Amino acid sequence: MEAYLDNGNTTPVDEKVVEAMKPYFTKKYGHPLFIYSKGREANETVENASESIANTVGAQGNELTFTSGATEANDIAIRGVAKANKENGNHIITSEIENPSILRICEELEDRGFEVDYLEVDDEGFVNLEQLNNLISKETILVSIGHVSDEIGTIEPIKEIGKTIKDQNPETYFHSNIANSYGKVPIDMNETQVDLLSISAHKIHGPKGVGALISRDNVAISPVNYGYLSLSEIRPGTENVPGIVGFKKAAELSFGNFDSKVKHLQNLRNKLMEGIEKNIPEVILHGPKGDKRSPANVNYSFEHIEGESILMHLDMRGISVATGSACATRKLEPSHVLTAIGVDPVTAHGAIRFTLSRMNTEEEIDYTLEVLPEVVEKLREMSPMAKKRGE
Amino acid sequence: MEAYLDNGNTTPVDEKVVEAMKPYFTKKYGHPLFIYSKGREANETVENASESIANTVGAQGNELTFTSGATEANDIAIRGVAKANKENGNHIITSEIENPSILRICEELEDRGFEVDYLEVDDEGFVNLEQLNNLISKETILVSIGHVSDEIGTIEPIKEIGKTIKDQNPETYFHSNIANSYGKVPIDMNETQVDLLSISAHKIHGPKGVGALISRDNVAISPVNYGYLSLSEIRPGTENVPGIVGFKKAAELSFGNFDSKVKHLQNLRNKLMEGIEKNIPEVILHGPKGDKRSPANVNYSFEHIEGESILMHLDMRGISVATGSACATRKLEPSHVLTAIGVDPVTAHGAIRFTLSRMNTEEEIDYTLEVLPEVVEKLREMSPMAKKRGE
Repeated sequence: MEAYLDNGNTTPVDEKVVEAMKPYFTKKYGHPLFIYSKGREANETVENASESIANTVGAQGNELTFTSGATEANDIAIRGVAKANKENGNHIITSEIENPSILRICEELEDRGFEVDYLEVDDEGFVNLEQLNNLISKETILVSIGHVSDEIGTIEPIKEIGKTIKDQNPETYFHSNIANSYGKVPIDMNETQVDLLSISAHKIHGPKGVGALISRDNVAISPVNYGYLSLSEIRPGTENVPGIVGFKKAAELSFGNFDSKVKHLQNLRNKLMEGIEKNIPEVILHGPKGDKRSPANVNYSFEHIEGESILMHLDMRGISVATGSACATRKLEPSHVLTAIGVDPVTAHGAIRFTLSRMNTEEEIDYTLEVLPEVVEKLREMSPMAKKRGE
Repeated sequence: MEAYLDNGNTTPVDEKVVEAMKPYFTKKYGHPLFIYSKGREANETVENASESIANTVGAQGNELTFTSGATEANDIAIRGVAKANKENGNHIITSEIENPSILRICEELEDRGFEVDYLEVDDEGFVNLEQLNNLISKETILVSIGHVSDEIGTIEPIKEIGKTIKDQNPETYFHSNIANSYGKVPIDMNETQVDLLSISAHKIHGPKGVGALISRDNVAISPVNYGYLSLSEIRPGTENVPGIVGFKKAAELSFGNFDSKVKHLQNLRNKLMEGIEKNIPEVILHGPKGDKRSPANVNYSFEHIEGESILMHLDMRGISVATGSACATRKLEPSHVLTAIGVDPVTAHGAIRFTLSRMNTEEEIDYTLEVLPEVVEKLREMSPMAKKRGE
């Protein structure tokens, strides 16, 4: 049996998405810039997809720009806003638990003379709203805080963050990378005060290589890349039409019967969490419990053993999970997110992240709960750390 | 009947390419950064594709960086080299007939204080080698000249250009955007002195949304985008694994039996050119004839009528072609390439570009040669310009 529980990194493409894309590879292959029938057809296809995807967050099609993924959307959102608004201020705020995608962009801006503050988080990963309130000044052009922590599932209070920002400085733009929560934790741009959102198709059973930036009409934004004409003013290059069609289909599938899909995720998450806590001693949950946690995220440290060993043993049994910083698993540094919430380095090294999707089944969770306690027990038997403790 | 003759802009994806990609959507969907089996499998897939595609131009896999397309590859090549080498000089040379992708990047660098010279071309589109020779100085960090003109099919003398550059300044890098010639006009990095090449999958019956920059080991290059980790040091973001697999397959299909494919293209091109010249009076060829012309490009002005009208009438009969500047067909400016080779604006407006691919057939050319003279005759009958002349 197989259980793919690393959907926070990437997901399998839904067969229905592949079916939807197919005609756009071999038959409807026109270039959307050109005025003959095949071009106009491609143009309409891109516009329909823009409208359909933008609507899932309460925005309009003309507010959406297709990119090669959330990384590029984040880069345009943050560097593009910084560039367009540098006359108004040089201060940016983000949080210390953002995805490396955001942190690297902010570092680049620091190198270029922008001042960046990194908000602290509490032991469950919630950003410090008071600190945010105190840091916002006339110079603050942008705040970028992700909706849900990739790693520990914390759902940040987006409405309160938006209100705090706009109460202090209505001119400050609010960007949120929602790649990890999109299709799982709802967000409506009309009910929050968020100005820019980054999303990605391959996190919701769509294809890799396509994402989008959604930015409200009033946001001043400069391109960060240059080149060939496209339908967008801020992103050059030929539109990935089949990918865009796949993205639209994946969004439709994620948002259709949304509540029952979320319920399904919550059930799987709760089952996995209860099973781990009941069957495995000495485990430590990272991130909050209940409604403030993403229905798709489970993250525990298994004391006295290395996350990487657990990962490899689970992999041998067909179970895919992430460890430590899910975004830097080829490095042996402890996760910057776990460090930020106060987890000590040894415990952080024993962390395993399970991320669920609507395509996971109860059988996969049962199988994981059958294999995981065996793996942990076996590794603890072999572990010098565990032995020492038991002596 | 249909005849798609705008393959210079984009091509239908080969069914075999779609078949090759399929398993990477739904089964082999791992993220290449992660260390469990599915991740390692994806990693190997990307590395194999790098090697295979790099080999088609005589390079090695570690010299190839996957991008979202040739536009992004051009941007990294030009701005990335400018950024990494700005201590060595601030002078860049390109030609006045480059793709807008290149020209826009160069304009951005001019805004940032770089000096850019735009080489003149002769009436067939060949760059002025003497001018190149004279312009190169100690300050010249980069020369970017496309291998084949997108628009008029001129095959630039890449070897001589490389020799001219390196004889004058061995430290000057030579970049060539070969998106339009890749798979049609061969290039071997070991037999030329080109340092960086940009290519794109969707011009060779691969998928949109994937391209590559191939840069020799010794080239100093900085990233121009920031974000999430990837296998590359200069391009962030999750690799488009299925797209990369499709790109590899498309390259294999283009380079297998290469000579017979080029022969096929030459036959179609010659048939179309002879048919036009024989059956339609008052036509003007743009670009060279014979071996110095891309086997895939045909470009004529049909005097006294508008290219756009021809395009729309051909479209109604199922034939897709490009007009004027093939890259700006939503604008009514005459093509900058035709202007550069000395074509007057009125004649430039009557230009139609036909671009062929290995998937075109003799029947499609026959059909085009049946329809095109009728269309031209009918439009000339209606044209006030033609009437005036005939009176």
